[in-house]
Amino acid sequence: MRGKFISLEGGEGSGKTTAIHCIRQWLDARNIPYIMTREPGGTPLAEEIRQLILSPRDETVNNTTELLLVFAARAQHLAEKIQPALEKGSWVISDRFLDSSYVYQGKARGGDTEILNQLADWVVGDSKPDATLVLDVPVELGQERVVQRQHQDRLDKESLAFHQKVRDGFLERAQAEPGRVKVIDASLSLDLVQQQIEHQLSQLYSTWSGNV
Amino acid sequence: MRGKFISLEGGEGSGKTTAIHCIRQWLDARNIPYIMTREPGGTPLAEEIRQLILSPRDETVNNTTELLLVFAARAQHLAEKIQPALEKGSWVISDRFLDSSYVYQGKARGGDTEILNQLADWVVGDSKPDATLVLDVPVELGQERVVQRQHQDRLDKESLAFHQKVRDGFLERAQAEPGRVKVIDASLSLDLVQQQIEHQLSQLYSTWSGNV
Repeated sequence: MRGKFISLEGGEGSGKTTAIHCIRQWLDARNIPYIMTREPGGTPLAEEIRQLILSPRDETVNNTTELLLVFAARAQHLAEKIQPALEKGSWVISDRFLDSSYVYQGKARGGDTEILNQLADWVVGDSKPDATLVLDVPVELGQERVVQRQHQDRLDKESLAFHQKVRDGFLERAQAEPGRVKVIDASLSLDLVQQQIEHQLSQLYSTWSGNV
Repeated sequence: MRGKFISLEGGEGSGKTTAIHCIRQWLDARNIPYIMTREPGGTPLAEEIRQLILSPRDETVNNTTELLLVFAARAQHLAEKIQPALEKGSWVISDRFLDSSYVYQGKARGGDTEILNQLADWVVGDSKPDATLVLDVPVELGQERVVQRQHQDRLDKESLAFHQKVRDGFLERAQAEPGRVKVIDASLSLDLVQQQIEHQLSQLYSTWSGNV
C-alpha cells in the first residue's frame, strides 16, 4: 500500500512550521509511517542546489537559471527520496513542492507558464501530491510574522507587491486544481487552523488502503 | 560589431587544451579582443553548479537532474557572460557548450532528445556558436592521454563504451549541423591540428565586420 503525498504551501510567515508540527502530531497519534522533507532540497544534492538558489549573491540570477535549478532539485528529490518512501508505504510531507514553482518562478517572477507546464510534465508527471495544503494569510500579517524571525533569506527581502503576487498565485493554484489544492485560512486562531488541517488529513486517511 | 562565438568540443583526451592555446595565439597575433570561458561554468554561480555536477558523490544523480543543472548553468553563462561580451565586440571562446549536452546527457546517458531540443530552444535559441570545433580522436588515443593526467573527475572514470558513444555523438552533431560544427582530426601531429584550426578561424575572420 502506497503512502500518501502531502505538500504544504504558503507565503513567508503563513505558519507552515506550525502546520507541520500539527501534521506530525496527527500522524504520530495514528502510528502512520511518514517522512518530513522540503523543497528546494530533500536529498544531499538537492540541498546543495537549495543553497545555490537561496544564498544572497552579487551576481544577477537569470530567471531561467533559477527555474531550472528548482526543477533539477525536484527531479532528484522525487527520484531519490519521495518515490522510494511512497513505495515503501510511508506518507511523505513536503514543505513546498511543485506549486511553489508556479507561484515564485512563474507568477511572482514572470516566468513563462508554458515552460513551467512542460517542466512540470517532464519532472513531476503523475507524481503530484495527493493533497496540497495552502496556508493563506493576508500579506501584512505574513510580513509581521517574518520580521520577528532572526534569519531572513533572499526571498524574505522582496517587496510587499511581490508577496501579494505570491498570495494571489497560491489562490490561483487552488482554483486551477480544486481537487488537490486546498486553502487553509491561516489567519484564524491556532485551534481553528489545526481543525482545518486535520479535516484534510482525515479525508486523505479515509481513502488510504493502509487504513482498511 | 558583434564578436564571434566559438565553442570547442571533444571527448576526454582529445586535446582541447592544446587547441585553446593555438586559438589564443592566433587571436593575439591579430589583436582581436576575446574572452576564454568554459562549460559547465563561466560565471561564479555557473561554476558552483559545475562543482555540483562534477563532484564525485555517493548519491545517485538522476539523469534529468544532471540535464537541468547543465542547462541552468548555461542560461546563466549566456545571460551574464557570453552575450554581454559578444555585444561589446569581443570574441568568445568556450571550452564546451550546447553540443556537449547532446552528447553527454543525450547520446551517452540516454537522455530524451525531445527534451534536449526543447531546452536548447528555451535556453540557447538563436545564440548558438558561430562555429563549433570538434576535436576528434579515436577513443583509445584519448584514453591514453587521459591516464597520463594526475587528476581525474567523474566523467574520466566512465567506461570505454561510454567514450565511444561520446565520440560517435560529436560526429553525429557535425553531420546534423555541418555549417556550424566542424570536425578537426586531432589524431594528427600538432602542426597539422593547428593548421586545421587556423583554417576554421580564418573562415570566421573573413566574415567578421570588425575585419573590414
